[in-house]
Amino acid sequence: MSEFAPTRASADAPVLHQREMRLAYADCDPAGILYYAAWFPWMERVQSEWFFLNGLRQDTLKDRFGFWTVTRHTECEYLRQVSLFDTIDIELRLRGVGRTSLTFETQMHWQEGDALAARGAITLVCVDTEGRPIRVPHVMLAALRNV
Amino acid sequence: MSEFAPTRASADAPVLHQREMRLAYADCDPAGILYYAAWFPWMERVQSEWFFLNGLRQDTLKDRFGFWTVTRHTECEYLRQVSLFDTIDIELRLRGVGRTSLTFETQMHWQEGDALAARGAITLVCVDTEGRPIRVPHVMLAALRNV
Amino acid sequence: MSEFAPTRASADAPVLHQREMRLAYADCDPAGILYYAAWFPWMERVQSEWFFLNGLRQDTLKDRFGFWTVTRHTECEYLRQVSLFDTIDIELRLRGVGRTSLTFETQMHWQEGDALAARGAITLVCVDTEGRPIRVPHVMLAALRNV
Amino acid sequence: MSEFAPTRASADAPVLHQREMRLAYADCDPAGILYYAAWFPWMERVQSEWFFLNGLRQDTLKDRFGFWTVTRHTECEYLRQVSLFDTIDIELRLRGVGRTSLTFETQMHWQEGDALAARGAITLVCVDTEGRPIRVPHVMLAALRNV
Repeated sequence: MSEFAPTRASADAPVLHQREMRLAYADCDPAGILYYAAWFPWMERVQSEWFFLNGLRQDTLKDRFGFWTVTRHTECEYLRQVSLFDTIDIELRLRGVGRTSLTFETQMHWQEGDALAARGAITLVCVDTEGRPIRVPHVMLAALRNV
Repeated sequence: MSEFAPTRASADAPVLHQREMRLAYADCDPAGILYYAAWFPWMERVQSEWFFLNGLRQDTLKDRFGFWTVTRHTECEYLRQVSLFDTIDIELRLRGVGRTSLTFETQMHWQEGDALAARGAITLVCVDTEGRPIRVPHVMLAALRNV
Repeated sequence: MSEFAPTRASADAPVLHQREMRLAYADCDPAGILYYAAWFPWMERVQSEWFFLNGLRQDTLKDRFGFWTVTRHTECEYLRQVSLFDTIDIELRLRGVGRTSLTFETQMHWQEGDALAARGAITLVCVDTEGRPIRVPHVMLAALRNV
Repeated sequence: MSEFAPTRASADAPVLHQREMRLAYADCDPAGILYYAAWFPWMERVQSEWFFLNGLRQDTLKDRFGFWTVTRHTECEYLRQVSLFDTIDIELRLRGVGRTSLTFETQMHWQEGDALAARGAITLVCVDTEGRPIRVPHVMLAALRNV
């Protein structure tokens, strides 16, 4: 098993950022339910916006701080079927920090059913301008501590 | 030229529905700007939600009313380049009603630049359960008149 | 009506490039048929690959030739419903060349039904490094004449 | 850690199905490299086509055999950066069979660099018409043994 498939965020980890969305045709497939790949762009939207709102837009990190982040692993568990027009709260939490990596967890809460529909994770590795992994920079840790 | 490329919605056509979004990596391409195809799922999201909020969710029309809608034509004009993290207001208007078809127009307003970034349109044809075009049903016209 | 919604490619315009694909869950929606927005990334795939195979990869034009192309308009007409697992031939043709713009047409042929399922178009404008429209450069016209 | 994050397919597990693709603008993001979520629809395309070509199209399983499959978990590891116009061979293998579940592994081989770019997995659970997990049916095991 990959070293990049970390344990779950504890239930009381603070929510970093949150978005509500409603499943549209774009998100669903001929089975009438969520298309399994649809959560990944939504996970990225919420995560990217958290970086953006915390002064760390990822397209500027290399120039401003001499490092950037690359995605090393991602996953999603599907816990309940959700369907066209269901309303979902997407919550971003920190799942863990390694020496060179950060794992964010995204929970997709199904409003109408009051249940967790899916749980995703994205593991980012911090790399220098040559692409070599580096310790997670202070500027990143500071943003996470701000919560 | 196609009969399904109708004129623009007049500027004072009422806004049927509206959503705000922020461009994420999912929406942009290696040129650093919006990926041209990204507006289409957004246009559908806002349009589908309008139907949903007006009691006309499209996946129930056939069973409830004996007709449904098929997409006959869509288009998008790109008026200004927008980039990662720009904020966009997506506004849905009615562009026109034909004998058997409806055309919705979607305007993508770029908040930071206070300008129209793109203008899309979707033309739907109302069909019976055999797929034959029918006059736009009263239930549809009534929803549009409710605005 | 937009000036960027040009007439159709004549049936005998040569095919510039072609790809076969099979509709997967990714391309279809809860109605069990093609999701209307799914053709646009396919249209771009075939068009981008034609540029690539003709020495004009679009991400290098600015550096090599001092111009690049921006998408000004796109559209798609839906002529026949296609469903999960249908096989489609996507054919790229030139629809027309204007003073500063090029319009490519993409036809989606449904193999099993031997019929045209959809017809798309993308209009590109050639711009200089400041983004001002310029006459379609010779290097572009030469590639199109090679067919 | 989830029980649905199984070990890797052994290198000599037979290739069930294979597809070649070239990265287009649709697959890449403003960092100029593959958009992390882009592999998931490609993984599904190759997997769905394998089911289709083996007489097990997933949208017919319920009617024909009284069971169907739901996606329980998916993941992707990113091993090397790939960029616009790179050519990728996508190979499908069986990673493992549990009592009620199957895990397919998809390897994305970068042709120009002769290296593994990414490794994905999809875990499906077989369920009866009420959605209860059932033992992997013989018809499924038989198709896998045919390789």
